[in-house]
Amino acid sequence: MEELIILMNLELSIAIPDSLISEDKDLREKTVKVGMVGRACAIFKVQKIYIYKDHGDYERDFQIIKSLLEYMETPQYLRKKLFPKKEELKFVGILPPLRTPHHKLLKPLSQIKVGEFREGLVVKVKERLMVDVGLSSLIPLNGSANEGSRVTIRFTQSYPNLKCEIVDKSIINEYWGYEVKRGPVLSKLIKIVKPNLFIITSRWGKNINELWDELVREIKKSKSILIAFGSPKRGIKEILADEGFKPEDFTRFIINMFPNQGTETVRTEEALLGTLALINLAIISNR
Amino acid sequence: MEELIILMNLELSIAIPDSLISEDKDLREKTVKVGMVGRACAIFKVQKIYIYKDHGDYERDFQIIKSLLEYMETPQYLRKKLFPKKEELKFVGILPPLRTPHHKLLKPLSQIKVGEFREGLVVKVKERLMVDVGLSSLIPLNGSANEGSRVTIRFTQSYPNLKCEIVDKSIINEYWGYEVKRGPVLSKLIKIVKPNLFIITSRWGKNINELWDELVREIKKSKSILIAFGSPKRGIKEILADEGFKPEDFTRFIINMFPNQGTETVRTEEALLGTLALINLAIISNR
Repeated sequence: MEELIILMNLELSIAIPDSLISEDKDLREKTVKVGMVGRACAIFKVQKIYIYKDHGDYERDFQIIKSLLEYMETPQYLRKKLFPKKEELKFVGILPPLRTPHHKLLKPLSQIKVGEFREGLVVKVKERLMVDVGLSSLIPLNGSANEGSRVTIRFTQSYPNLKCEIVDKSIINEYWGYEVKRGPVLSKLIKIVKPNLFIITSRWGKNINELWDELVREIKKSKSILIAFGSPKRGIKEILADEGFKPEDFTRFIINMFPNQGTETVRTEEALLGTLALINLAIISNR
Repeated sequence: MEELIILMNLELSIAIPDSLISEDKDLREKTVKVGMVGRACAIFKVQKIYIYKDHGDYERDFQIIKSLLEYMETPQYLRKKLFPKKEELKFVGILPPLRTPHHKLLKPLSQIKVGEFREGLVVKVKERLMVDVGLSSLIPLNGSANEGSRVTIRFTQSYPNLKCEIVDKSIINEYWGYEVKRGPVLSKLIKIVKPNLFIITSRWGKNINELWDELVREIKKSKSILIAFGSPKRGIKEILADEGFKPEDFTRFIINMFPNQGTETVRTEEALLGTLALINLAIISNR
């Protein structure tokens, strides 16, 4: 139980550059890479993904990353309704499913229990607000909401008089997906987010084993963690230098997550999964 | 320096099932997945990849996995010579480069130093044995070798009288790639490989944080580690059950590497990268 409480109180976020997929030849390869990012975030319960501005014009790539990550995070039954056909979604068929608790499957209305949560889309039928939650009928909504908005609902009455209300997803004791947010340049993002613990991943940082005990202690004291990753071309050190800063200006946790690596570089999407596996261990280590 | 010595003495191997890519729709997706496996192995200096037999006929998938992993491991300049055009290599263009120390780039012959190592292919020119090492000319070989074999060489004389000899790659103090081996079923493979430390990754195992200190101690005593991964459909427990065994018959290190995971499943290629990041930390932690 203690483990659970730690996790519920902890907001884990990552910062990735909008140049993340700039070196991939085509949309198909970009889609594969973003798919890996979405999966890594869901496995390790990341709550916010900030896409910060790298130096250069990556607006188009930003749109692709954001659309694909949001598409992945949306339950299957809402995807067609929330995402009109767009060029950047051409290869969504190859995206791996997240299979998170908030991606519910179809089940008979009679099996719905009061208190269950579900993601839905608000619709209006003859002036009555209803929610499309991927079941065989729409669910009448108690309360108000904007038509067309995506909401998290809780069932307040069971079959055959199913009703629901909108809730804040923070009250749910399960992983309920991530949010994708546009960030400014990295140095500004850090100042806006103000995490309790800010971690920079860098091949030139201190080896993870040397900082481990301190990291575990610091995580225990933290309610929010932000982990920043570099771009395919440049590390965080170079990225911050462009903005007139050094990594040390923001944190003492500048960590080489993969000491003794066998390859010249570790790609951002690889670093993400490996780093989150390590941070997850630090989070659950009770020391 | 101590860290380096530990790593040189340690043989890290993994066991993956031949059913690894059985759920992927087409060769292109299979290629992407194998690419992720090859990269994860190279980042964390895996020396042997065993592909064990899962229950079912995965011979074709085995051929694809083996060919792609070996293709990735081969320096770029030898690929066309060692790999004739094969159907399973159709999408190698999308494989990420390993960028390991043994994938050397072209450089002028005059810059080659005595003692340097390089991968090469033995060729015969007018009854003289030479080695193609991806430079602007073939290098005369001291000693004997089979024509057409891939070898590791060391330069014994410098430009303009370059000469080389064949060496065993175990003498090289850098990561020099992995070997791919066909294994029998998993229970038999364990008995053949006989690692000092055998680790089973399983969602139903003990949480990594609970076994961490013991794992770090055990790794320190071990000269060889084998880590086994399940298939897309079934975990190691079910796979061993088919063979009349339980995980506990082989090791007490049956580990859930991702406690508190946010997704219903972690794919084998994801588990591989995350697990190797954790084991790497355990290896370099001097406790």
